[in-house]
Amino acid sequence: MSIFLLNSCDSEKNSQTSHNSDKMMIRISEIEILPEYVDEYLSILKEESKASVELEDGVISIYPMYHKENPTEIRILEIYADKKAYESHLETPHFKHYKTTTLKMVKSLKLVDMNAIDVETMPMIFKKIN
Amino acid sequence: MSIFLLNSCDSEKNSQTSHNSDKMMIRISEIEILPEYVDEYLSILKEESKASVELEDGVISIYPMYHKENPTEIRILEIYADKKAYESHLETPHFKHYKTTTLKMVKSLKLVDMNAIDVETMPMIFKKIN
Repeated sequence: MSIFLLNSCDSEKNSQTSHNSDKMMIRISEIEILPEYVDEYLSILKEESKASVELEDGVISIYPMYHKENPTEIRILEIYADKKAYESHLETPHFKHYKTTTLKMVKSLKLVDMNAIDVETMPMIFKKIN
Repeated sequence: MSIFLLNSCDSEKNSQTSHNSDKMMIRISEIEILPEYVDEYLSILKEESKASVELEDGVISIYPMYHKENPTEIRILEIYADKKAYESHLETPHFKHYKTTTLKMVKSLKLVDMNAIDVETMPMIFKKIN
């Protein structure tokens, strides 16, 4: 893999931000929900995502979506400052509540670890909908 | 290096612009690249994504990633202000350049339309890495 793509902006990045992009954990969670639980699941996930982004400094993004054509298919873009932030997230009351209450609703779960292609441009994203 | 300075200026400016989240087009593009083209493809995609986010007001996010374990698997989170912004994006020189130069590199392409689960919390995302 082209390391240069990932490292190209580290020097200025570190001078501007508190989070080191090299250490970030990026993941797409692919979750299929049993049809009878979709509404209930979405409501619980929404609360959990919101609490995580608001309360945890190390949670940079938990951005949940569902397939327009098939709402049982959930995708969550998750970005954590580092592995420690992720591990700490797993210990929060809001994550534990989400995990225990939705366990029976989940048909399948796949956690796919990703790398960002352009770390520099990342902070621009979503600014426009402010 | 001006990227981040530029960024903060942009956010001031963009905070005045509000996009109606109801009309937003959200998509995850799932692209498989032929292994021999991965580096070249990532470089072209990086330029195209950056140009789109920087130059097009209606492109809220083009956030490209690849599977850590399998870099031929690309995922792009794309968010457009509305359908018109998407159609206008397809007509830009940077998109056309990307499309024509990478055509031979793409093994498969799937465009999956998504809905956001929590529109309100969306603007908080990525703010933390500024």
